[in-house]
Amino acid sequence: MPYPPDFRPIALLTDFGYTDAYVGILKGVILTIHPKARIVDLCHGVGPQDIGHGAHVLDISLDYFPKGTIFCTVVDPGVGTSRRPVLVEPGLFLVGPDNGVLWPAASRNTIRQVIHLTRSRYFLSKVSGTFHGRDIFAPVAAHLSTGIDPNRFGDPVSHLERFSFPEPEPCSSGLILAIRRIDTFGNIGLALSRERFSAFAEQGFCMRINQTKITRYYETYAAAPEKEAFIIPDSAGFVEIAIKNGHAASRLDVQIQDSVVLTAGGKI
Amino acid sequence: MPYPPDFRPIALLTDFGYTDAYVGILKGVILTIHPKARIVDLCHGVGPQDIGHGAHVLDISLDYFPKGTIFCTVVDPGVGTSRRPVLVEPGLFLVGPDNGVLWPAASRNTIRQVIHLTRSRYFLSKVSGTFHGRDIFAPVAAHLSTGIDPNRFGDPVSHLERFSFPEPEPCSSGLILAIRRIDTFGNIGLALSRERFSAFAEQGFCMRINQTKITRYYETYAAAPEKEAFIIPDSAGFVEIAIKNGHAASRLDVQIQDSVVLTAGGKI
Amino acid sequence: MPYPPDFRPIALLTDFGYTDAYVGILKGVILTIHPKARIVDLCHGVGPQDIGHGAHVLDISLDYFPKGTIFCTVVDPGVGTSRRPVLVEPGLFLVGPDNGVLWPAASRNTIRQVIHLTRSRYFLSKVSGTFHGRDIFAPVAAHLSTGIDPNRFGDPVSHLERFSFPEPEPCSSGLILAIRRIDTFGNIGLALSRERFSAFAEQGFCMRINQTKITRYYETYAAAPEKEAFIIPDSAGFVEIAIKNGHAASRLDVQIQDSVVLTAGGKI
Repeated sequence: MPYPPDFRPIALLTDFGYTDAYVGILKGVILTIHPKARIVDLCHGVGPQDIGHGAHVLDISLDYFPKGTIFCTVVDPGVGTSRRPVLVEPGLFLVGPDNGVLWPAASRNTIRQVIHLTRSRYFLSKVSGTFHGRDIFAPVAAHLSTGIDPNRFGDPVSHLERFSFPEPEPCSSGLILAIRRIDTFGNIGLALSRERFSAFAEQGFCMRINQTKITRYYETYAAAPEKEAFIIPDSAGFVEIAIKNGHAASRLDVQIQDSVVLTAGGKI
Repeated sequence: MPYPPDFRPIALLTDFGYTDAYVGILKGVILTIHPKARIVDLCHGVGPQDIGHGAHVLDISLDYFPKGTIFCTVVDPGVGTSRRPVLVEPGLFLVGPDNGVLWPAASRNTIRQVIHLTRSRYFLSKVSGTFHGRDIFAPVAAHLSTGIDPNRFGDPVSHLERFSFPEPEPCSSGLILAIRRIDTFGNIGLALSRERFSAFAEQGFCMRINQTKITRYYETYAAAPEKEAFIIPDSAGFVEIAIKNGHAASRLDVQIQDSVVLTAGGKI
Repeated sequence: MPYPPDFRPIALLTDFGYTDAYVGILKGVILTIHPKARIVDLCHGVGPQDIGHGAHVLDISLDYFPKGTIFCTVVDPGVGTSRRPVLVEPGLFLVGPDNGVLWPAASRNTIRQVIHLTRSRYFLSKVSGTFHGRDIFAPVAAHLSTGIDPNRFGDPVSHLERFSFPEPEPCSSGLILAIRRIDTFGNIGLALSRERFSAFAEQGFCMRINQTKITRYYETYAAAPEKEAFIIPDSAGFVEIAIKNGHAASRLDVQIQDSVVLTAGGKI
């Protein structure tokens, strides 16, 4: 057995929020099946039905968990339909709906196999049309955490639903960038890698977002002056827009669907 | 001993929220008494002093946790008064204030006994007037999780405070229904069982809530059209009002104290 | 070894909130280094960069955790600058940035030593400029939880950054008091100990906050009448302003930066 039970912690990632019973129910189901399961809350604050948000959190967390971790990922607007419940093995175990939420994390690693979860002996005895987290994903994660071979949960399939964060798009004045994520601190995470930013902005840069122009780059929040927006490498290999000790997204009135224009050379 | 320590996890359910030290303090108290206790956060987002909300979360979670689980339930507006601290055994262990919060969960199961928690050797040495979660409930849960017999915490009493969700009420046009819960997704949980709804609406139905009429029923969220409110069985045996990928409560401007009229036969 | 691994739980305290991957990443890092680490969430709802809030939560929690607990505290506006990462031993282990957040908790206990965390073999291999929680504090906490001697993480230093809650300040009419904390329930925690309040208010008192005068004192919430603000001892040795089953801060329109005047003898 590649990862014995002690080394198969279960990380829970959902859009269930913090005011309902749903997260607790997942834990109860897991402990009923595997009383010694090691459960950790990864995040339950994914926006309701927000596959992009869930995919982002899973993607940037994955590399920091030990091999053998089971990510039980429940962001599932298509619950009850024909969208497949799957288990993906990219070194760790990803359990969840096949709706794209697993793709960014899975595709960065070598996908060894995708199992379509069909063996109902590993589900709760009655499967509802509205809560597969409880009825399918948590039970499968729990059984998996006892050391069961992934192949016993169903047959391999060759398809995994894709979901990609938008790539930088060239335009006449430079690049148009999408926003990947606005975090708790108000930092605006851009869909642009640190390397690409550095190459592009070698001779200076100007970034425009709504009415704001940004021309400064710092390596730490603290190095920046107060109140002024700047670019900084984030902790996941991308760059973000930040304001020192301030909430950049509120101050610049930015929403996640807004886009950003990056021009090289400091000209506007 | 019916459930050895490894099989007595402690599930924490409180209205303490997520911005204070209170939840952490409960955990510290438990670990001080029982360093190997298996603590899980069930939910700390119960509305402040909202006994109905706490009772609902406990009620729909209970069946999914393993026998032997200790539910340390702290929604306690009467802290410091003569309301009893109790331990109820309905197969699992419910520890909390006797203010009704335990009733729905306890009464659905066979209540074996109610123990009035009086043995102060199992409390913190100093009991405050404002934080019995820390001073009484967490310590009792922790001692209980080490395998101590429930009867050692106090004497059995014959009373347990009742709390009931409103039953459907007949009216000239059909049934008046209360709202049990509005969840994170905006789904409006009704105090009407799936079975009773099915029997009542066999020939079609019309539900009126504020200015909205609802006449559609679906088994999954995904089967419904966009934007239109519909009825769907929830995951706990009741029915709820939902909007696919939308927040029904906001869109229909519904508050938990609102009520709903259900008419049979599709007529209004 | 003073505290073997089973008795070195890791309590996580951060301002990372509940909608991002950051908290989950800390847990992944810890489990990678120490698969059997006992991780508990103390609180992740500290206000962004709010050192006072973090210091308060740590301060009032500390005494309730078992000796040997490792508090991994990440409220770190100066991340990436020369502010020291430290480990403080006041009986338990405090790991975090040396920016004051550790001071109230550390200084109430006997500080045995402050270690400047410099041994990078205990950090992640690449240390970013923006996320020392992941790169330094979580790895150090994890290694420490395996039983490693604190002195192996760096050299002792003699300085620890101070942070103090404001003391009551005498004025012509009595005392001016600062607010320590407004909690989830809306209770307004004052920077005044219960003992000092009792001595001061022996002959009655009048407290003025914004437009409100408060002259009542109760030992429990339930003993108070509805709707009227009153003084009550909190659970941490201070006094607070509360309204029974109500949110005092909203009803009295109080912000944390407001101050309060306390007059002895019931006169105004």
